[in-house]
Amino acid sequence: MNDAFAQIAALNARYARCIDDGALADWPSFFAEDCLYKVTTAENYKDSLEAGIIYADSRAMLVDRVSALAEANIYERHAYRHILGSPFIVEDGDGVARAETSFLVVRIMRDGTTDLFASGRYVDVVRFGADGPVLAERVVVCDSSRIDTLLALPL
Amino acid sequence: MNDAFAQIAALNARYARCIDDGALADWPSFFAEDCLYKVTTAENYKDSLEAGIIYADSRAMLVDRVSALAEANIYERHAYRHILGSPFIVEDGDGVARAETSFLVVRIMRDGTTDLFASGRYVDVVRFGADGPVLAERVVVCDSSRIDTLLALPL
Amino acid sequence: MNDAFAQIAALNARYARCIDDGALADWPSFFAEDCLYKVTTAENYKDSLEAGIIYADSRAMLVDRVSALAEANIYERHAYRHILGSPFIVEDGDGVARAETSFLVVRIMRDGTTDLFASGRYVDVVRFGADGPVLAERVVVCDSSRIDTLLALPL
Repeated sequence: MNDAFAQIAALNARYARCIDDGALADWPSFFAEDCLYKVTTAENYKDSLEAGIIYADSRAMLVDRVSALAEANIYERHAYRHILGSPFIVEDGDGVARAETSFLVVRIMRDGTTDLFASGRYVDVVRFGADGPVLAERVVVCDSSRIDTLLALPL
Repeated sequence: MNDAFAQIAALNARYARCIDDGALADWPSFFAEDCLYKVTTAENYKDSLEAGIIYADSRAMLVDRVSALAEANIYERHAYRHILGSPFIVEDGDGVARAETSFLVVRIMRDGTTDLFASGRYVDVVRFGADGPVLAERVVVCDSSRIDTLLALPL
Repeated sequence: MNDAFAQIAALNARYARCIDDGALADWPSFFAEDCLYKVTTAENYKDSLEAGIIYADSRAMLVDRVSALAEANIYERHAYRHILGSPFIVEDGDGVARAETSFLVVRIMRDGTTDLFASGRYVDVVRFGADGPVLAERVVVCDSSRIDTLLALPL
């Protein structure tokens, strides 16, 4: 098993745990300072259209987003459970890898109702540094066009 | 990839297969004799409340539970499909590891109806012995408070 | 982590990506020329009954199936998202392994509706050759008897 595979699988497990545990203040630390984080739909992604849902091109923007969620007290309203597939390593070399990972996110509302919230794939650029791997890019490509992540936990 | 990760991933795959195949008589063998097996909710777990759903503190109790299920002929009524994430290794050393693994369980009724039965995470203490890894503790933390596992297959 | 595990996990990730990306023309290349591909139900599989849903005993038949799907323009109508568990290695030796892997498939319709389409397990015979692993057999055992894959994407 190559090293990129193992490191990205472990990174993804930590990433999902961070969000699902509600430790959102730690979420930006998975990204490089000059990162790209986008949530888009498969249709827009295929046509190379701009992301319609969420767009951030620095870690600072992710920190802002998390603060807004905290103020809106979004934590109390729902939780996610991410189930991730194994990463598919598209390219690997020179301390950078491109990978894709399928995800399924279940949403649990405060009253206990559970539904299938989103499915799709992460299209990632991962940089391997002295402190371990960080996300230089994470494009969250949702399968359905019916996704609404306004004022919601990150995917 | 460290050894604890690989061994726990393999243990989890076997564990899920055992339940999903209906080989329940083998299920207690995944646990140490002096084990802890609990099913609880995220809310109770966070507040350190007692598990309200299932509690067993020995392998013998798990054997009893499985026998009760067999007598109630619960096998015929439904089946599960576990989909597990990669284990997240919280701590590893001295022949013992603490790990967390996300799960999603789909329930298939005898008439073919399928529903999303439960999501959550296993919070585990795994002991590595001469015969391979065993579960010293498996706390099944369900995301939803609406879970009812009375007279149901184990999670 | 043994080699069969790593190679089959990677094969599965590529396989799922191929179908979920709609690259169906590449799908037959995952199989040996003299392969077996069946879709059946848990009930029929347990009773060793013939597969009622899909049966192909050569790669050429898989190519035919894919062509039929292309002509029916099935790509436009829906997409799948496969979420796969870790493979369970049943047997490994002499360049051939038997493995089982749990799957969950979510179906996304063109209007954005998402539903839990199928759950089950792959029962595989994998051959390891100079060009990497190929599927000598993939029996797709669906948990529910209510599955209808007529004119649908492969599982």
